[in-house]
Amino acid sequence: MTREKRGIEMVDIIHRVGVKGAALDDVYQAVATVDGLAGWWTVDTTGSADVGGVLEFRFPEGGFDMVVLESEPGRSVLWEVVDGPPEWIGTTVRWELKQEGDYVIVLFAHEGWRERVEFMSHCSTKWATFLMSLKQLVETGAGAPAPHDVRISDWH
Amino acid sequence: MTREKRGIEMVDIIHRVGVKGAALDDVYQAVATVDGLAGWWTVDTTGSADVGGVLEFRFPEGGFDMVVLESEPGRSVLWEVVDGPPEWIGTTVRWELKQEGDYVIVLFAHEGWRERVEFMSHCSTKWATFLMSLKQLVETGAGAPAPHDVRISDWH
Repeated sequence: MTREKRGIEMVDIIHRVGVKGAALDDVYQAVATVDGLAGWWTVDTTGSADVGGVLEFRFPEGGFDMVVLESEPGRSVLWEVVDGPPEWIGTTVRWELKQEGDYVIVLFAHEGWRERVEFMSHCSTKWATFLMSLKQLVETGAGAPAPHDVRISDWH
Repeated sequence: MTREKRGIEMVDIIHRVGVKGAALDDVYQAVATVDGLAGWWTVDTTGSADVGGVLEFRFPEGGFDMVVLESEPGRSVLWEVVDGPPEWIGTTVRWELKQEGDYVIVLFAHEGWRERVEFMSHCSTKWATFLMSLKQLVETGAGAPAPHDVRISDWH
């Protein structure tokens, strides 16, 4: 969806982390496979990470279903949210990877929010802590996926 | 500045954290005083946190000067960036505080970016880790201000 089509009110969450001493494929495996995702986002990850498949992420508080729209080894992954909190449905989650020196850079974007609600602020911070969990998983072998995730507030 | 005046291309960084077992004034002191800010953002914080004053934040990699536009005890703080990286100049940083049960909720917004550049993604993640530092400072007495801050990538 282009920004023009989306209109003025749509807003995005964006982040950038660098995974030290990693290969592009290590980070790709962490965002493009069920086992990888279970290692840093939520241990209760099931479904198919193939293009056209549906990934089911479950947390103590609820969950999300994502259709995998794109998955290019070592480069990018794109999901569309098809079930979950109403604010999330129809939004997309984009992962772009690139090598910069000793780091694999992860450019993350959760795009297409219809309005800038308080829940979006919560999700922005929560994504950041999960991206740090992804970084730790690849760098050290152990992330902090739910239900062992970092608590940031009363909304968990 | 209203969103209408800002136009379609301006974009924001937003976050939400909750500080457990804190009073509104504890969190206000952490964002509205030089000593508070030095405890979670950068130890090298100087200047005046009064309305109309200029706060000078210095990091190993550079720094920011902010004019304090608003400061309402226990409620909100608003800064405008007057010196620093070109992408930051003219942007504003807004803090809103509220009590929810046992938590003080911090709603953070770094508003008015002119375009969604990679540096903005970096700053979004970096703000999240600094907000966790602010939370830790108030909850435990010790934050992780620069130069002791959490490293997130090659850009620090």
